[in-house]
Amino acid sequence: MADGASGADVGVVETRFAELFTAADPLRLDSGATLGPVTLAYETYGTLAPDRGNAVLICHALTGDAHVAGVHADTDKVGWWDDFVGPGRVFDTDKHFVVCSNVIAGCSGSTGPGSLNPATGRAYGLDFPMVTTGDMVRAQRALVAHLGIPRLRAVVGGSVGGMQALQWALDYPDVVGSCVVVASTTRLSAQNIAFNAVSRQAIMSDPDFHDGRYTEHDVVPHRGLATARMMAHITYLSEEGLQLKFGRSLQDRDRVSYGFDRDFAVESYLHHQGSKFVRRFDANTYLYLTKAMDYFDPFPDAATAARALAPVTSDFLVCSFSSDWRFDSSRSMELVEVLLRHDKHVAFQEFTTPLGHDAFLLDVPPYKATLKAFLDRRAEVP
Amino acid sequence: MADGASGADVGVVETRFAELFTAADPLRLDSGATLGPVTLAYETYGTLAPDRGNAVLICHALTGDAHVAGVHADTDKVGWWDDFVGPGRVFDTDKHFVVCSNVIAGCSGSTGPGSLNPATGRAYGLDFPMVTTGDMVRAQRALVAHLGIPRLRAVVGGSVGGMQALQWALDYPDVVGSCVVVASTTRLSAQNIAFNAVSRQAIMSDPDFHDGRYTEHDVVPHRGLATARMMAHITYLSEEGLQLKFGRSLQDRDRVSYGFDRDFAVESYLHHQGSKFVRRFDANTYLYLTKAMDYFDPFPDAATAARALAPVTSDFLVCSFSSDWRFDSSRSMELVEVLLRHDKHVAFQEFTTPLGHDAFLLDVPPYKATLKAFLDRRAEVP
Repeated sequence: MADGASGADVGVVETRFAELFTAADPLRLDSGATLGPVTLAYETYGTLAPDRGNAVLICHALTGDAHVAGVHADTDKVGWWDDFVGPGRVFDTDKHFVVCSNVIAGCSGSTGPGSLNPATGRAYGLDFPMVTTGDMVRAQRALVAHLGIPRLRAVVGGSVGGMQALQWALDYPDVVGSCVVVASTTRLSAQNIAFNAVSRQAIMSDPDFHDGRYTEHDVVPHRGLATARMMAHITYLSEEGLQLKFGRSLQDRDRVSYGFDRDFAVESYLHHQGSKFVRRFDANTYLYLTKAMDYFDPFPDAATAARALAPVTSDFLVCSFSSDWRFDSSRSMELVEVLLRHDKHVAFQEFTTPLGHDAFLLDVPPYKATLKAFLDRRAEVP
Repeated sequence: MADGASGADVGVVETRFAELFTAADPLRLDSGATLGPVTLAYETYGTLAPDRGNAVLICHALTGDAHVAGVHADTDKVGWWDDFVGPGRVFDTDKHFVVCSNVIAGCSGSTGPGSLNPATGRAYGLDFPMVTTGDMVRAQRALVAHLGIPRLRAVVGGSVGGMQALQWALDYPDVVGSCVVVASTTRLSAQNIAFNAVSRQAIMSDPDFHDGRYTEHDVVPHRGLATARMMAHITYLSEEGLQLKFGRSLQDRDRVSYGFDRDFAVESYLHHQGSKFVRRFDANTYLYLTKAMDYFDPFPDAATAARALAPVTSDFLVCSFSSDWRFDSSRSMELVEVLLRHDKHVAFQEFTTPLGHDAFLLDVPPYKATLKAFLDRRAEVP
């Protein structure tokens, strides 16, 4: 594969903001509630072709944001999928105009529970309406129109981003050329819902949560959010991956402490992940997005699946990873099965790696090669 | 199998208390610290034979206690393994004298962090010394001597109880006839340690934890302990078992709430488990026992294994469950492998069930039949 090297081939980037709905013309949500105004934060990489036919939309996962690649002008941070985007890379910016937006209910510039509620002059907090994957995609659809893009060459997402990509193909069949769903599922299992429930319990039972009004108290429910992240992080890695990386190695010591120090390297690593996370992510957003995950279920029964898939014209690439136990390969295969049953064009590949669910974000060369080949080919076929 | 029926064939039972060590003659712990006095709470079922050769010791798991069977005289509670113990049952009280004690550091009558520290006149809290599986077994050994039992027909334990049973066989080869290790492991994996670390983070970061001195503040860190239990509970059940039991069923509603209610039955179930647990279990004990689990590693390398196993004369029954992902069958097979490599007599069986790790506590008929046959045979061979 012609992969560049480490870091920021797309150079310095900035996040932009699109005002997409108003109080008078609001976003209509699946719950029946309305939301307006709505801002979406987004970034773009590459150049929109004169025929406006080269756009590829990336949908981010649970804790992602619009900053996919490059060095952010304000924060100096490198994007979360930086080595996937740039000239010659998976998302080849010589060929594609790449767009990514922070989802609604997000905490990285898009309208969410931390935004000002125009009705009260205070932050929404838990007054923010519940949003679904369908609502996220509806808002993204408005952004795509706002950018003057009539049709997307492809919509691509991993994990929760894969749910959005699938929703795009279902809801806007005339707009989506190809749909790429990586390390995802058509519905959370009882175990997935259970882990989400525990993470929300950790956050909402933190005394600093204050019913979601923590910013008004100048605190954040950092303990609960850190606990939620630590637990979730275990589910992002495979048992084998954790074993290879940490095993039973001790952290900066020759023998156990016989106390409540963090004896093992894996403990220290998880605590570090928890602390890092609370500095960059909002607790209310975590609640809303896990709930949207719980609700996602586009094919609850055969009749609904048939109805949802009837108008779909895009083709699909579905990818899974052998050691992903959050959304294991059988979940991807369920998606493949329902798509094939409705006569869609689907390619499926499982990649062998010990990297677990997180693999979709990482340098797994055969995965990157497959994804790149799929997207490159879409640039050749008009 | 000749299994009685539901409930309490051994009748009304009471917990007794043995004073086993003193300040002058303390229990010497692996950490180098000493502990005295030490009380162990215990129960017995059946009758010690005149030759005192029919005793079977049950070791309880993480959140168990000495009350294995029967209806407790004080609390009316039925024991945690009630349908395994009684005339004609797995632990046939017509054949065996069954003993179980609450581990040291426990919270059900044995000396633990909630006990009074004679040095200060206050509860130990986190001043309680760290205990290991070896320490738990050393204290149990003193109890067995106190009861006038020269030799145990068998030591049996599931999960953390299996670790204790194995430790018994290693540390007291002359005392242990047979050793039964169910749904257990010779060491925690990095993932196991990680889950324990998150549970301790949840408890210790609860503002009501007060560095372990919560009873002096008339509170308990109930939020953190509930979160820890909810998370752990997910690991006790299999993905398949949760799916079969709950799937995506909603709880007392026809449609989702579009709010932070507990929409799904599995959420409601987990919250119920969390609330129930905090009423019966002590947070400090949870910390100590998870740490003892982390430390357990009797065979860290080949030389240590050879040394540890050289004097061992007991035979072994090792059982695992197909859907247990906390300690999956490969972990039991690792134990079998090391035992066979050192020429021990080992029987191993994996039982097929969707019940996950919890299966060791439950009515899995082939498992109960195997266990019963193994123990019954020990009653026949002198």
